[in-house]
Amino acid sequence: MRSTSRTEAFPAHTPAASQIFTTVLSHGPLTRSEIAARTRLSAAAVTKAVRPLIEAGYLLEDVDEDARQPSLGRPANPVLVDGGRALFIGVKMTGDELIAVLTDLCCRIRVARHVPLTTHDPKAVLASTAALVQELLTEADGFGVRVQGLGIAVSGDVDRAAGVVRYSPFLEWRDVPLAELAAMTTGLPVTVDNDVRALTVAEQWFGAGVGLSDFAVVTVGAGIGCGLVVHGQVVSGAHGVAGEIGHVAIDPAGPLCHCGNRGCVEAIAADSAIVGKVREVTGVQVADAAAALDLAHEGDPGAREVYARAGEAIGRGIATVANLLGPERVIISGEGLAAYDLFAEQIRDAFAAAAFGSAARCDVQTRPLPFEEWARGAAATAIQSFIRSDTY
Amino acid sequence: MRSTSRTEAFPAHTPAASQIFTTVLSHGPLTRSEIAARTRLSAAAVTKAVRPLIEAGYLLEDVDEDARQPSLGRPANPVLVDGGRALFIGVKMTGDELIAVLTDLCCRIRVARHVPLTTHDPKAVLASTAALVQELLTEADGFGVRVQGLGIAVSGDVDRAAGVVRYSPFLEWRDVPLAELAAMTTGLPVTVDNDVRALTVAEQWFGAGVGLSDFAVVTVGAGIGCGLVVHGQVVSGAHGVAGEIGHVAIDPAGPLCHCGNRGCVEAIAADSAIVGKVREVTGVQVADAAAALDLAHEGDPGAREVYARAGEAIGRGIATVANLLGPERVIISGEGLAAYDLFAEQIRDAFAAAAFGSAARCDVQTRPLPFEEWARGAAATAIQSFIRSDTY
Repeated sequence: MRSTSRTEAFPAHTPAASQIFTTVLSHGPLTRSEIAARTRLSAAAVTKAVRPLIEAGYLLEDVDEDARQPSLGRPANPVLVDGGRALFIGVKMTGDELIAVLTDLCCRIRVARHVPLTTHDPKAVLASTAALVQELLTEADGFGVRVQGLGIAVSGDVDRAAGVVRYSPFLEWRDVPLAELAAMTTGLPVTVDNDVRALTVAEQWFGAGVGLSDFAVVTVGAGIGCGLVVHGQVVSGAHGVAGEIGHVAIDPAGPLCHCGNRGCVEAIAADSAIVGKVREVTGVQVADAAAALDLAHEGDPGAREVYARAGEAIGRGIATVANLLGPERVIISGEGLAAYDLFAEQIRDAFAAAAFGSAARCDVQTRPLPFEEWARGAAATAIQSFIRSDTY
Repeated sequence: MRSTSRTEAFPAHTPAASQIFTTVLSHGPLTRSEIAARTRLSAAAVTKAVRPLIEAGYLLEDVDEDARQPSLGRPANPVLVDGGRALFIGVKMTGDELIAVLTDLCCRIRVARHVPLTTHDPKAVLASTAALVQELLTEADGFGVRVQGLGIAVSGDVDRAAGVVRYSPFLEWRDVPLAELAAMTTGLPVTVDNDVRALTVAEQWFGAGVGLSDFAVVTVGAGIGCGLVVHGQVVSGAHGVAGEIGHVAIDPAGPLCHCGNRGCVEAIAADSAIVGKVREVTGVQVADAAAALDLAHEGDPGAREVYARAGEAIGRGIATVANLLGPERVIISGEGLAAYDLFAEQIRDAFAAAAFGSAARCDVQTRPLPFEEWARGAAATAIQSFIRSDTY
């Protein structure tokens, strides 16, 4: 995270304090003893960490529940996060547009904005981003609350620790030091992360992953992505690559992938692969994924078969994740869910056939998440950086 | 872990104390401030946790390094684990034999024993195990040190928490409550785990995984197994299945696997798959894996091609692990390494081709580990259970 002076420091000076706050953020309201039980910290440590967080206004005592009796001299009232105490901005960059949201500390969206991108030139994209952020900062002024951080989510190989976009195919970027550049143009502390990992953070803290130590988010659409949470933490990979379900190769005789291999899940099930295959099979020169989808929805058997094959590939990719990691849940999302009626059955059948033993007990569910949710994921990474500030 | 009264309790009564001891076990000798830095615990917490461990004889002050000066009133001498303070027994069960080792607390092998198995009947296997354990207990008496636990490693679906072998294909066992039964017959606390996970624990604490937070152990031989360490912990899977690299399906047109799918890595690269394919390709009715290997080493081109294909499958399986998890290192081991000269190149080439982007930077290394090492892995799980006893 690149830091500037406009913002304040979060009053959690130890990993334990950050952990306590995160626990209340995802699971609150919680009493101090409930926090102690969940974090496996001592009640004394919880009481000590909660005090400055209440004093600084980040946590509130839930005085409504006055029926509870204090025990052992410790306050028994539950505490909860005051979402309105701080605001954050999340931006999702796609090849076509910027989607930005202003959220509170509980990652609830207050304002959302879209602007189209007409160029992928980093300077122009940064200028558009800065203008969009400025609009949201003005909105934040209206709430009278300070924005404490900006998160940016980009697809591709992103090094969060360094704040650098190593490679983003849709933006055609290589080694862009996005965090540093965006901090200069916006004056905010900036966190840059891979878009699927950002969405996974939002699901872990505020979505369908709350309370799960092991789950996966699989996104289908322009690419096939995957965010993995193992032992309660998002997997980043020792060298920055992880969750590349799109490049799990399931068929050596399959179509050529842009990565150079044959039969990757992405080469069968990503939007461009589906469009190409529908054209080939039907002879209809569909313009884009929406047109291919229309053709299949009109009942064209060739087009429907292409979606069925895509579903099979996705199901097999998910089974591979389940066989290696045994997650409790897999959440399928992404704009490709618009075609879900065309491949849901194939995803489930292929998963059930390829999952090994009790790995098949994994709960596979779908969750349509609009692009605002991806921007919300970016805001979640900014919240995460704010809470885990490197003051300890 | 099933507990009995013959053994003593380990004097670590908090997760932090166990973590401190484990850190010294893997990385020691360490000064208290080095321990604090590695565990991110306070120096005061380390000093407090170390004291009872020294008093009980599990840790020693390294008085040799008397040149170091004390600072802030805390002892500056490094501490290290007294390996001779406690002994453990590890047993690896295969379909053919039992391999048992007596180790010290640092998992160094003191004595090793093999006995053949003539039946897979659980009662008979238990009786053989009890006799073998009794031999090692007698050896331990010779050292004048008490055995604090027994670890048993079995291939297949093993529920460590419940102490139950859910399914072991080589032993043809289903739902055998092995921990409870072995505790009754040996009088020791018993930990039962999947054999590859046990080997992975030994590699993490005492082998090629020391100091790595993310690595994988891939074993080739009778089966193709994989132990995964992510965020510093061995992955067990929400439903008990994890690391099933053997059932990553890489070719829908490949040979049928015993799991019901086609083209699993195990259906191409496990011993029985290789033997079957060598017979089919060469027409020579090789008796077993050793005979198939001899034929390939004699230069039979058909047999050599079978090994080459097996190497390709293993390499693609490893690439799938790397693309999803991005480990720092993959350690290839198992009795199948006897054929390593026949497929090393194919493993490396297939891995390099299928690894996505910087996932290819993963350090893939081989490490021949005899069956005693698998038994040592079982002892490591017993040490782990002893250190993490549920007294907190």
